Amino acid sequence: MIDFELAEFQARLERAQAAMAAEKLDALLFCTEAEVRYFSGFRTQFWQSPTRPWFLILPRGGAPVAVIPRIGADLMAKTWIEDIRTWSSPNPADDGVSLLAAALKGYARVGLPMGAETSLRMPLSDFMTLRASFGGAFVDCTALVKSARMVKSAAELAILRKICGIGSAAFARAPDIFHAGQPLDQAFRAFKIALLREGAEDVPYLAGAAGQGGYGDVISPPSSEALRENDVLMLDTGAVLRGYFCDFDRNFAIGRAPDEAKSAYDVLWRASEAGLAAARAGATCRDLYRAMHDALGGGTSDVGRYGHGLGMQLTEWPSICAWDETVLQPGMTITLEPSLNMASGKMMVHEENILITEGAPQLLSERAPPELPVI
Amino acid sequence: MIDFELAEFQARLERAQAAMAAEKLDALLFCTEAEVRYFSGFRTQFWQSPTRPWFLILPRGGAPVAVIPRIGADLMAKTWIEDIRTWSSPNPADDGVSLLAAALKGYARVGLPMGAETSLRMPLSDFMTLRASFGGAFVDCTALVKSARMVKSAAELAILRKICGIGSAAFARAPDIFHAGQPLDQAFRAFKIALLREGAEDVPYLAGAAGQGGYGDVISPPSSEALRENDVLMLDTGAVLRGYFCDFDRNFAIGRAPDEAKSAYDVLWRASEAGLAAARAGATCRDLYRAMHDALGGGTSDVGRYGHGLGMQLTEWPSICAWDETVLQPGMTITLEPSLNMASGKMMVHEENILITEGAPQLLSERAPPELPVI
Repeated sequence: MIDFELAEFQARLERAQAAMAAEKLDALLFCTEAEVRYFSGFRTQFWQSPTRPWFLILPRGGAPVAVIPRIGADLMAKTWIEDIRTWSSPNPADDGVSLLAAALKGYARVGLPMGAETSLRMPLSDFMTLRASFGGAFVDCTALVKSARMVKSAAELAILRKICGIGSAAFARAPDIFHAGQPLDQAFRAFKIALLREGAEDVPYLAGAAGQGGYGDVISPPSSEALRENDVLMLDTGAVLRGYFCDFDRNFAIGRAPDEAKSAYDVLWRASEAGLAAARAGATCRDLYRAMHDALGGGTSDVGRYGHGLGMQLTEWPSICAWDETVLQPGMTITLEPSLNMASGKMMVHEENILITEGAPQLLSERAPPELPVI
Repeated sequence: MIDFELAEFQARLERAQAAMAAEKLDALLFCTEAEVRYFSGFRTQFWQSPTRPWFLILPRGGAPVAVIPRIGADLMAKTWIEDIRTWSSPNPADDGVSLLAAALKGYARVGLPMGAETSLRMPLSDFMTLRASFGGAFVDCTALVKSARMVKSAAELAILRKICGIGSAAFARAPDIFHAGQPLDQAFRAFKIALLREGAEDVPYLAGAAGQGGYGDVISPPSSEALRENDVLMLDTGAVLRGYFCDFDRNFAIGRAPDEAKSAYDVLWRASEAGLAAARAGATCRDLYRAMHDALGGGTSDVGRYGHGLGMQLTEWPSICAWDETVLQPGMTITLEPSLNMASGKMMVHEENILITEGAPQLLSERAPPELPVI
């Protein structure tokens, strides 16, 4: 149940408290899965149920306060959080709002993530009620959370290495798993089973596609159409271990590799090489984007970026984009994800997971082969 | 890719438009997975990525409008939605807000789910910007959405029957899957594989627990502790087919069944029987709660309710609670989920999935046996 040592959580809190002091925030308020888990260690798939809100408060001084439904009290008690305040939820008259307001009493400036890539996982009307009754102000703290979560600790990296290794091991078995004539949805199912067998705890994300020489889009669930010779099969997996994701894809030609697909694969592989060469501490995401963009010979795809942060969520800050000036730091884990629109109207995507270090990046995913593998 | 016929989506829209007319709403705005999917058919695991917001507008007259990141355009084009407006996302300067504001222009009253069990899946600061620039008012439309989604169509029921059947088939294999000495996390993994093999597309939720004669809480991920004789193993699964959930649990004694566990199981089984007898169209959720509560001999557990709606989400409206006066209607799918705190301090939970009809409810899950099964 306990994913990290106490010292890990204390360090996370201390960093957040230092940032709160710098930004003159009295406390931080979280209601989203990743943030509640990052600071408390509270890990459960029960977030799948939209019914109940969950809250965690980090004061600038002192210990965190969990304000949660009673159903979560036992699990929260297994974490390092000691101040656990519960109510019987669901409760339509007051689903934790007054308990939360009481816990926030006396604070003038409370940070709440309100910026890019955040959401409000509580009823908006309850938030409005809270805001009206709360004497202080809610202030956006997205930058603070982004900065805290982007650089991974040694303990987080150990898990990320492991889940990326599990993904690589499952992909290595592709020739035994995928074959011509196999319906695509069966290929997906077989691959999920392979990931679980290799040690993944869960596969919250598996997208992919197959088509003659390339594919159409990269976020679809699978059809039941059978794989055919000349198809390029792409699978992109977000498998999970102890709440941390891998996120990379692999491409396979079924039976034989059409020339256009081989050539697109080659361009993308070389773009990933350019990304690996450019992914250095001190460089910006923009630099990294430019390196891959130039290697691709310009052009755009519909994906909107060439990679992103990776960790407790399938995608995290930052974005490998022309507009993202986030400076890469040792300990950041990111994906390199160049994509290409082909002359045929199809597309292809490559993705690797890497760790930024003081020197060359370390591959967390086992590097894709330089030529489109045929199975 | 197409989960339902065109007529299904047209009927969903017509019902929503009639409700909009009754409530004098000019349009509905959705940004959450279940609502966007319910009205458009847009189904993808890509919602796992928190990076990009997605919007669907239903005008009181006319066709729906999707305002979405370009990466989703191909998939949305496979649905029945024809008016698809896209932007290149992520975009920190304007992540769809101005495009959305333009699409809402001219509307005075726009419904947005803001009530119980809803959340705002877009950055709060972007919502504030939208609200400030929008000439009209956002009005809570939770009741409308709840009412639309609670009663399932024949096509939805066909999928729900199938996924509940898959869950039952996997549980039927329990004696082959679980055994003393097996680490609990391996039992979870083996059960996920069993569900996939039986035809589940995904297992977004698997919680459970094991302990001597009962267990501690019901939302935890598994430990690596080995199953022992006298343990009661409980697994509660939310497996998915075409985006629809089953949600029920089963209890198994390992090796032998302690008396207290047998007795708690018996009380819960009879409480489920009382629930099945009370689950009639025209009764309220409160009536159903009372029937199970009386059969349990009063008392409370930490779960907060004795069941809930079931469908596109693991848990949906309504709640089987003393305060929920929702009237049961034919076509509603709900869970019966009585839970019990035992004298030992442990707890036990039973759960069945049922369909409300004009007469006796239909079991969607295969009824749990009347005595605690020993494996």
